[in-house]
Order: sequence, then structure tokens, then C-alpha cells
Amino acid sequence: MIDVETASQIFKAKLTFNAQRTAFDIKADRAYPPFNRVMMDGIAVSFDEFQAGRREFLIEGVAPAGEPQKTLKLMTSCLEVMTGAPLPKGTDLVIPYEHIQLNAGKALVTKDLDRQRFENIHAVGSDCKMGEVMLKAGSVVNGPHAGIAASLGSKLTLTQSPRVMIISTGDELVEVEETPAPHQIRRSNVHALKYSLELNGFSDVTLDHLKDDPLAVADHYQKHAKEFDLLIYSGGVSKGKFDYLPNVWIEMGVTKHFHEVAQRPGKPLWFGTDEKNKTTVVGLPGNPVSSLVCLHRYLIPGRQIHVRLSEEVVFKKDLTYFLPVVLESRPDGALWAKPLKIKNSGEFSALAGSDGFIELPAEPSFFKAGEVFSFFSWRHF
Amino acid sequence: MIDVETASQIFKAKLTFNAQRTAFDIKADRAYPPFNRVMMDGIAVSFDEFQAGRREFLIEGVAPAGEPQKTLKLMTSCLEVMTGAPLPKGTDLVIPYEHIQLNAGKALVTKDLDRQRFENIHAVGSDCKMGEVMLKAGSVVNGPHAGIAASLGSKLTLTQSPRVMIISTGDELVEVEETPAPHQIRRSNVHALKYSLELNGFSDVTLDHLKDDPLAVADHYQKHAKEFDLLIYSGGVSKGKFDYLPNVWIEMGVTKHFHEVAQRPGKPLWFGTDEKNKTTVVGLPGNPVSSLVCLHRYLIPGRQIHVRLSEEVVFKKDLTYFLPVVLESRPDGALWAKPLKIKNSGEFSALAGSDGFIELPAEPSFFKAGEVFSFFSWRHF
Repeated sequence: MIDVETASQIFKAKLTFNAQRTAFDIKADRAYPPFNRVMMDGIAVSFDEFQAGRREFLIEGVAPAGEPQKTLKLMTSCLEVMTGAPLPKGTDLVIPYEHIQLNAGKALVTKDLDRQRFENIHAVGSDCKMGEVMLKAGSVVNGPHAGIAASLGSKLTLTQSPRVMIISTGDELVEVEETPAPHQIRRSNVHALKYSLELNGFSDVTLDHLKDDPLAVADHYQKHAKEFDLLIYSGGVSKGKFDYLPNVWIEMGVTKHFHEVAQRPGKPLWFGTDEKNKTTVVGLPGNPVSSLVCLHRYLIPGRQIHVRLSEEVVFKKDLTYFLPVVLESRPDGALWAKPLKIKNSGEFSALAGSDGFIELPAEPSFFKAGEVFSFFSWRHF
Repeated sequence: MIDVETASQIFKAKLTFNAQRTAFDIKADRAYPPFNRVMMDGIAVSFDEFQAGRREFLIEGVAPAGEPQKTLKLMTSCLEVMTGAPLPKGTDLVIPYEHIQLNAGKALVTKDLDRQRFENIHAVGSDCKMGEVMLKAGSVVNGPHAGIAASLGSKLTLTQSPRVMIISTGDELVEVEETPAPHQIRRSNVHALKYSLELNGFSDVTLDHLKDDPLAVADHYQKHAKEFDLLIYSGGVSKGKFDYLPNVWIEMGVTKHFHEVAQRPGKPLWFGTDEKNKTTVVGLPGNPVSSLVCLHRYLIPGRQIHVRLSEEVVFKKDLTYFLPVVLESRPDGALWAKPLKIKNSGEFSALAGSDGFIELPAEPSFFKAGEVFSFFSWRHF
């Protein structure tokens, strides 16, 4: 049995895939802004004229956004300019409508202010130069990124999603649509795992189910190992008489990296890679909470988040303890984690209302309110 | 011009839709667990026998998961039990394999421990009773919720997504695939807004574009107002000569709730509702950063998050200041917000690498490092 930190390091070293990210650098196709861009509706004038004391300007015309650059004919006059318009040639100061009065074809500056050359003008190339990288490959996509790509005429190309198959095992499982007999339960883990993967950047997830039959599992593995980057099995990795999966994987040529981690829940976790078929095999415990915790802790961990424990927790076993929590952002700027009252780790219901879980190390056994621990979110951010 | 808090209150009062959530309460279809469920692989015995001093038990057979409940024939013997199996009748203690030796059809308890009645047994109904609400209507869905619904045989039915149309206006805009002339820019805002909406629970988003022609806009509004819950216009709401949209909406019968908010960026924000057509009209400023900030601040704000400013900021205008930041979770348990160096608010590129923005109130003008402010995330969590 290895500890959580070691398990985490092995996963980091051996996993060859990641959630979907931007596939390529996106570079500026021209300078931005592509011209000296008017930033306020108002008039464009010569700064030198203004500085020399001129406050009244004859209006030569209007420069709207979307039209080619205009030219000011007389240094002493002005053009009305709209936000987004190219700054007219011969002008280098924009005075907003709020500071002027328009009367009989003239603009009178009524607000007495110190003004700067290029005020209210977004200078050509001030955001970025042509060819500059605007969005690096490997970014997790959000709304602004979609805007950047569109503004540069680029497609927001994402890396190919790893091909994931989630396989439930266990003869006690029936389909979600079926009514289980008293000794049966519905096949729900795979749906929780799939939703979690899809919510966090894995879009190519297939589900399958196998009866508790080692030969059928071996046959299934031989058929599918090459097609997927990751095979996640749910159940069948404990110490039980019918937990035959680890033996099947080893017979199939999978290199075992570890079996069992000193953690609760999730102790029976199994991890291996198959170099020949270029795939990764993860055996998650069949317990619903365990399987979700292992998925989020090791396979799709997201960014590192530190949170404060909001109440004392006692856990005397010499195991790392993953504890579901509700997150609360308090006015002190800290994220506080309130442990959920869970009687047993067995059922999903224990997780309703939780935002994720915190990791309490194997030592010590007493965790004080206010201490800081790592948090893993059901939804990345 | 109203302040940010007032604008926020008006939005809250007048918006009649929300991001997609669970549509119905999901109730337990039976008690959970549905039987006394074995939690460890090992042997099931009578607690009274164990308590009376018995340490050796004849093995009567095996109780796997997925088979109906077995019955122990002799109080003095045991059944091997697998995790997930129904606890055999006549037993009320599970002793894990790690604590026993198996030899010649007998199990010998080798680990000397105080044991409790029902140890390693997940009692029937201990997670929830039949009919109990397991997942409330109105939940933002995550992986555990998908698992809960599946385990109860329920579909994870979501509320219908509000029907949103985003309409860009402005003759300076060309399509993303086109190469803009020097005075033109690509139509990118709508893509940033659509991606942001989809990332945060709005799945029914349509795009459209209109030339700067009041009659065409009025005609378009009459055709489409009834079909959408929300019409978001991008551009055309400033004080410019060609910012005719507010007049068109009022002519169309839209009730204006406000125009202009004391904020930077996003001052020209316009908001109204059309009771006759049962739709909401929002005019976002055409500036890319402004439009995204207004969308996230007022229309899809997410949960309230407090963060600490990581460096001093000076902003002397009497406006609420929305400042893009990079979030950093520090070992003190706090989220620290590092302002991005932005020369102008005009371009999306300023937002690359940001996680969202913070809201700095209109007063004071000096914001110290370490002070706490509200944060709005590009991705909800």
C-alpha cells in the first residue's frame, strides 16, 4: 500500500493525456487596434490648437465607425467622431460630447480640463503587435478566449479529447431504467463519472457494462484496449473473492503501477498502463463516493485550491481522509470548507449539496477549525 | 445615470429566467441502502457469539454482491461476505479478511479488537428513507447529482434553457472568416457572449447580425421578440449619432428600466422588458470587454465570491471599476486577485489569462493590497 502523495506522483508521471485545451497558439493577424481608434463619441481636434487656447471649432463633418479614415482639412476645425471610428488624419485629441456644446455648425468646449495628446484614443498597436501570441496553446477555454479567437479570424481549435471508456462490473447492478430487486442496485457510478468527465473537459466518453466473468472481461479488453486512451473500471478491485479484475489486467499485459492507497474512501484503487496497446487502466472502487473522489483527486484534479476548514474534524485512522464539503466564500476573502455530515461513505446521496472534497493528511488525527487544506472541486474553475 | 447596486437590484427584480438547473425534486424510490449492506470483504457472524468469546467459526458458504439475502444456519458458524452483499440473516457483525485466517473450512479471528454490533455494515435506510428528497429542484448539476439521479432511476431533467438571441449591430463589423479592411473589425463579441452563456448553463443561444438601419432593426424586433426570452444587443447604445437602438426599442413598446450605469467599463448599458411580447431586452456596449463584464455582472453572475486584492489600485473616477484579474489560491486559504495590466479596455486580448474581474466601488479612489472585493468568474463553480 502506498500513500496519497506517491500515488499522485505516479499518476502525474504516467498519464499521457489531459482535458481538452486550445490546440494552437493564436497570433494577432494585424496590430490591435488596427488603427488609432476613437474611444468616446465627441469631436476630434488638433491637440496643438487646443493647447494654444482654441476652444471653438468649426465642424467639417462626421466620422462614423466602419468607414475609412477621414482627413481634417483645416487645423482650426474639427470632425465629429464616433466610438470605434478611425481617428481622422490631422487630429490627435478627442473631446467627448459631455464636454462641449454644439451650435450653428460649431463645437464649443465648455468643460475646462487639462487634456493630453491622444486622450480618448486607443493607439494603433497598443494592445498587441502583428504576430504576437494572443492566446497560448494549452489554455482552458472561456468566453474571452472565444472572443479573442473570433476577433483574429481564428477557429478556437481544441486538442482532441482523450477517448475514455468507463466499464461497470458487478452482477448486483441493473440498468437505470430497471426496478432493482431488494439485493440489487442501479448502475449509477458510470453516469456520475461520465458527467464529471464531461463537465471538466473530456468530451469523448463511452459507457459499457460487463458481467462478473473473467473470460468476458479479458475478451472485452482485447477488443477495446487499442481504441481508448483510458479504460476506467468501476468495481471489482477490492479484496473480495470475486474481485478478479487486477488478475485479468495483468494477464492482458498491463503494467501494474500500484494497487491500494492509504486513503479513505478509495483504498482499493488500482492503476496500470499498457505500453503495447498505448492505453491506461484505472480500477476505481465500486463504492460511489470512492469512485468519484479517486477520479477527481488523481485523474482530473484541476487547479490547486487552498481552503479553510470551518469546524474541527477528528479522524484517527492512519489514512489520508477525503471529506466532502460545502464551500463558502466569506467576507475575509477566504474559502471556508464545511464538512458534510456523512454517516457512511457508501451512497451518492451523501454528496448532494457538496462542492467537492478536502484532503486531510494521514497525520495528525485532529484537524482544527481554521486550518488550511487542499480542495478538489466537482466543477473546475 | 444609476449606480451599480441599483442596476443590479433592477436586474434581479425584472429578470424572469435563470441558467439551467434541475427541474424537479428527485426523491428516493426506496430506502438507501435498500438492505443491510456489507461494507468490507470478510465474514459475517453473530455479534453475541463473538462477544461471548467465540473466535473460530465454521464457514457455511459465500454471500456475494448481487445475490438475494442468505441465511446463517448455525449461530456458531459464519458466511464469507463480499462488499455490497446483503447481510445474511442471523448475522450482525462483519469481520474483514485482514483480521482473520482461513484454514480447513474455518475462519479464525486473529486480530484482537473491541468490536461493535453492526460494525462494517451499512444499515438499511441509514442514508435516506423512501420518499425523502435526495436532490432539490433548482440545483446546478454536477457529477454526484448525475449519480444520485441514476441510482434512483430518475432522469436528470433540467429546466428549459432560456431562449437567447444575441444580435450584433454596427457597419464596421465583418464576419470572422473575412479579412477586415483597416477601418473594420471582425464580429467577435457575439461569439464571446455565446461561449460565456453556454459555459454557464444557457444552452439555447442564437446569433444574428443587423446593419445600422433603424427600420431593419424594428422589423427584426417585431419578427423575433416573441420567440426569445432574452434579446441581447451588442453595440449601438452609446451617445453617438448612430446609436439609435434605444429609440427603436422604445418605439417597439419596450419598457426602459435604465440607460447608463456609473461604471467602467460598460457605462452605456441599457435594460428594458417587453411585457406584451414577454421578453427582456439588454443593450450591451459594443466594446468587447464592456460587453463581457456586463453579461457576467448582471445577467449570469454566479455565486458570490470574495477575494483579496494582491496589489494597490488607484482609480480616481467616481465610477464603479470592474478590473480583470488572475486568481491565485494561496496557502493562507484566501483567493488573491492580481489585476491585469491593461492599457485600454477596448480589446479582448486584455482578458487573455484572466479568470474574471473584481468590482471596486466608486468610493474611495485608493484600493489597498489585501482589501477584499467581490469577484465574478468567467466560469461558474
